[in-house]
Amino acid sequence: MSEVYGVRRGRLRDRCAAAGSAAVLVSRPANVRYLAGAAPPGAALLLGGREDVLLCPPGPEGDPPSGRPDDGLRIAVLPAGAADPVVAAAELAQGAGAPALAVEEHHLTVARHRAVAAAAPRVRIADLGLAVEQQRIVKDDDEIASLRIAAEITDQALGELLESILVGRTERHLALELERRLVDHGADGPAFPTSVATGPHSGLQGHRPSDRRVEEGDFLSVSLGANYRGYRCEIGRTFVIGTSPADWQIELYDLVFAAQRAGRQALRPGTAYRDVDHAARQVLDAAGHGEHLAPRTGHGVGLEIGEDPQLAPAAMGKLDACVPVTVEPGVHLPGRGGVRIDDTLVVRQEADGGPELLTITTKELLAL
Amino acid sequence: MSEVYGVRRGRLRDRCAAAGSAAVLVSRPANVRYLAGAAPPGAALLLGGREDVLLCPPGPEGDPPSGRPDDGLRIAVLPAGAADPVVAAAELAQGAGAPALAVEEHHLTVARHRAVAAAAPRVRIADLGLAVEQQRIVKDDDEIASLRIAAEITDQALGELLESILVGRTERHLALELERRLVDHGADGPAFPTSVATGPHSGLQGHRPSDRRVEEGDFLSVSLGANYRGYRCEIGRTFVIGTSPADWQIELYDLVFAAQRAGRQALRPGTAYRDVDHAARQVLDAAGHGEHLAPRTGHGVGLEIGEDPQLAPAAMGKLDACVPVTVEPGVHLPGRGGVRIDDTLVVRQEADGGPELLTITTKELLAL
Repeated sequence: MSEVYGVRRGRLRDRCAAAGSAAVLVSRPANVRYLAGAAPPGAALLLGGREDVLLCPPGPEGDPPSGRPDDGLRIAVLPAGAADPVVAAAELAQGAGAPALAVEEHHLTVARHRAVAAAAPRVRIADLGLAVEQQRIVKDDDEIASLRIAAEITDQALGELLESILVGRTERHLALELERRLVDHGADGPAFPTSVATGPHSGLQGHRPSDRRVEEGDFLSVSLGANYRGYRCEIGRTFVIGTSPADWQIELYDLVFAAQRAGRQALRPGTAYRDVDHAARQVLDAAGHGEHLAPRTGHGVGLEIGEDPQLAPAAMGKLDACVPVTVEPGVHLPGRGGVRIDDTLVVRQEADGGPELLTITTKELLAL
Repeated sequence: MSEVYGVRRGRLRDRCAAAGSAAVLVSRPANVRYLAGAAPPGAALLLGGREDVLLCPPGPEGDPPSGRPDDGLRIAVLPAGAADPVVAAAELAQGAGAPALAVEEHHLTVARHRAVAAAAPRVRIADLGLAVEQQRIVKDDDEIASLRIAAEITDQALGELLESILVGRTERHLALELERRLVDHGADGPAFPTSVATGPHSGLQGHRPSDRRVEEGDFLSVSLGANYRGYRCEIGRTFVIGTSPADWQIELYDLVFAAQRAGRQALRPGTAYRDVDHAARQVLDAAGHGEHLAPRTGHGVGLEIGEDPQLAPAAMGKLDACVPVTVEPGVHLPGRGGVRIDDTLVVRQEADGGPELLTITTKELLAL
């Protein structure tokens, strides 16, 4: 397991050397974690100097960097009062004689970038761009194994909630209970803020749980996911509260289900991101819901929720095998509520059985 | 209540106009919230163009910006596919004929700053620096009222935990229970990740709860706080588990208590930040614990936990009245554990009774 980080760093160093930057300074936390196996808050990773170094800010007393970086990486905990780790890294790169240093201009603030440049006046500061984010899109077996466990935990937490009494409880309490159950089952924490939306709130993406209580006849939509060893998955389901759903609820549910299935079925290596989005979107569009749809119907998952690829109308690029994504269309009718259905899947070759569904909670319309 | 945001914006506009920037672009979320009363994720606030405008990214369908900005502020939700709100704000500033635009270089990334400059080539882009952060240091009555409620909620959550059985439970579960109780009592959420540290972990600042279980004879230190309407407070207490503390535990507790009291007693308008730190630090230093102390013994609280002022040896500046701060010295003995004691207080004139203690849970050494 520990060799994997060294291999990833080697790939990035090779790519940057080919682009003219001998040294690379990575500061975005998810990218640091991907390349070093750990990302203490504020740490910076310098590659291609004399050696690879993870520079950590002076931490709370006695707290070692979390995680377990592999052997090819030196860990330097800066003394109290030391400069920002990115500045210390720039000094180190200059000391090692690096002619150029690629930094993450999409992560460094203007103020920190200026401090980096001032600390290494003999080094040309270049832009690393999204090189690490791109390298992260296709996952290896260990990463997919972590996502699979994250999905199992998520399914367990959701399954337990469905067995409990829901009527009369608030969105806020249901969300807290789901998060507690995620941790009970071994999650490091929720992958993102758990959303529970009842009645008129149902079907809203990213709805923040309120004090509204679950009522008979409500749609109830939930969105949650576990963070397991840094890997984050996502599931969304919509249920109906009471004995039998109303006709409009059944119709709307069937429509969103059809859209979500169309999106899932479009997940094949070589398919354009926008075509996956289109497959799901056109079902809702044809039924007259096109105007108020979310800007994307899915996205990549991994060390971040919502990482690339984006499944959206203007997205550029094509799916590869071993890319985990969500497919999550939804419709919300103002004042009435709505439906969201969301799965995490891994893109696979058809010869390998097609997309691998990680979140396996049923997508039948359950009346709870 | 709603007028307060307009007054804050007016003060900032005046200050910036005096410094040569007619228009101001605020992007740091806590600063946007301070000036607009709401900060939808990714929103940007433009002041001093034709009018004050809060530009919000195209949100999840149907979700209005949270909070309730006052009347003098226009809210513009950008259409799907629109540019980054900071870029849209720069275009607006140029359209309004602003000669200069001050931006937050400590928040904008290099990539976003470049996009801002490219969108408004006829505008000189200047640095706003920490102007809003400085304006936020002294709190008004409404802000202090929110902090007072946050502290009440925090005391309640902690008090309930103390009445429950602790032995045998894990740090992780105790932390989750505290966070649930915070929300039960009306918090919008925890102000920061709750820390529960037992036995050898006790006394470590920012310890991440583990699966270690509480044992007889342990020190147990907890650190938590409520977020109420965006305002965040902090409390830290250390307890002993079992009937009677050991001699070393009593000694260490008394020492940290004396240091914390010295810090609290130094809170007076006009006192240098570093002198408050010194008052607490010297007590621990004199007892031989100087080497491993945290870099600061307290900090400001408000819309962010850990905002300015910093109570640290090299901090520049002096306390004002109506500045809420923490006083939180601690000692950790590797392998044995330690003690942290942390309160949130508001600096007040002596004529007004001296520092106002917001977190009133007892600081006696309780055996639980």
